[in-house]
Amino acid sequence: MEIFQVESALVCTRRIAGLNQAALRVLRTASGRRVVATDPVGARPGTYVFTVSGSAARYAQGDYAVLTDLTIAGIIDDWPRSGGGLE
Amino acid sequence: MEIFQVESALVCTRRIAGLNQAALRVLRTASGRRVVATDPVGARPGTYVFTVSGSAARYAQGDYAVLTDLTIAGIIDDWPRSGGGLE
Amino acid sequence: MEIFQVESALVCTRRIAGLNQAALRVLRTASGRRVVATDPVGARPGTYVFTVSGSAARYAQGDYAVLTDLTIAGIIDDWPRSGGGLE
Amino acid sequence: MEIFQVESALVCTRRIAGLNQAALRVLRTASGRRVVATDPVGARPGTYVFTVSGSAARYAQGDYAVLTDLTIAGIIDDWPRSGGGLE
Amino acid sequence: MEIFQVESALVCTRRIAGLNQAALRVLRTASGRRVVATDPVGARPGTYVFTVSGSAARYAQGDYAVLTDLTIAGIIDDWPRSGGGLE
Repeated sequence: MEIFQVESALVCTRRIAGLNQAALRVLRTASGRRVVATDPVGARPGTYVFTVSGSAARYAQGDYAVLTDLTIAGIIDDWPRSGGGLE
Repeated sequence: MEIFQVESALVCTRRIAGLNQAALRVLRTASGRRVVATDPVGARPGTYVFTVSGSAARYAQGDYAVLTDLTIAGIIDDWPRSGGGLE
Repeated sequence: MEIFQVESALVCTRRIAGLNQAALRVLRTASGRRVVATDPVGARPGTYVFTVSGSAARYAQGDYAVLTDLTIAGIIDDWPRSGGGLE
Repeated sequence: MEIFQVESALVCTRRIAGLNQAALRVLRTASGRRVVATDPVGARPGTYVFTVSGSAARYAQGDYAVLTDLTIAGIIDDWPRSGGGLE
Repeated sequence: MEIFQVESALVCTRRIAGLNQAALRVLRTASGRRVVATDPVGARPGTYVFTVSGSAARYAQGDYAVLTDLTIAGIIDDWPRSGGGLE
């Protein structure tokens, strides 16, 4: 499971039907790489989260029919660590 | 889910039967790495998209029999962000 | 299977139901990249472990219903090697 | 799906039974990284191809029992692009 | 499928039951990154091998119940290539 900081919601009017109405978030690493994840937990911008990928991402979304490959699995209570960043 | 910019269609006369007639797109990151994805949404060159990978890519294509591992899942409305690129 | 050093437990009050009560560990590579894994073996901070990913991670956790994509599979007896680090 | 240039056939006398008699190719990126793929299309050295990974690779090989994780899915007609290499 | 050089056996007294008695090998790339794989072919240190990942790794091990995500699939006859290393 990977660690990211939530950047913002993603506005995406035109998308495949298989994403249903899942909330989408833009996440980023300390090095600035951005990815998109579905969010079943309601993570706000600025918080640190970890994600689950692969087929588990669909189960984690709470509905296997949602066609995601990355889902936020939890909000980390005390991140970043002292003396270190994301990576 | 990864974020890419659509570069062009991919011309590929000789391919496996399992891709059927799926439209193929060349996508690229800001750093210039290129990948190939199937496109069920009709994304034009220059637009920013996000993709779904793994077995979900086959469902996202709308036909599980299409042998893709990367499918365009949506067109992003307002990318790139101010003050930042793809990565 | 990847090799990591265990850094600490992960405190995460708010998480998806699918992780049940699985113990979570923050792992890191020599280069400092951090990931999160479920831990069925009870690995202490400082020890070196290897992990299994993908759908095998769920079986390795001992309960396929646990929605992890990375599980500690074993504790390495004699790591790091003389003359070399993690990577 | 990733883009590679075919380098050569791979000579491998001793291999698992699960690969059957599938043809193996060494592929490389512009940066020189090499991988091995099964080849159901008969790609010659020097040509540019794209590959499919994961479980789709087994279907793409034409026989799900072949234990590959990377299969050549098509030969690209007009690669490399003007003004750019593989990556 | 990835290419690695076998470095050594892995001593791991404490591991999950799902690995059974599978032989474990430490593999490394030319750049020095190390991973762990199960070995059904009996590859000796110093030889070059290629590996299969994902769910195919479990089939390649000869027993789907073995919880590996990386299995040695073959020993390469004539590696490294003249004029080039692993990557």
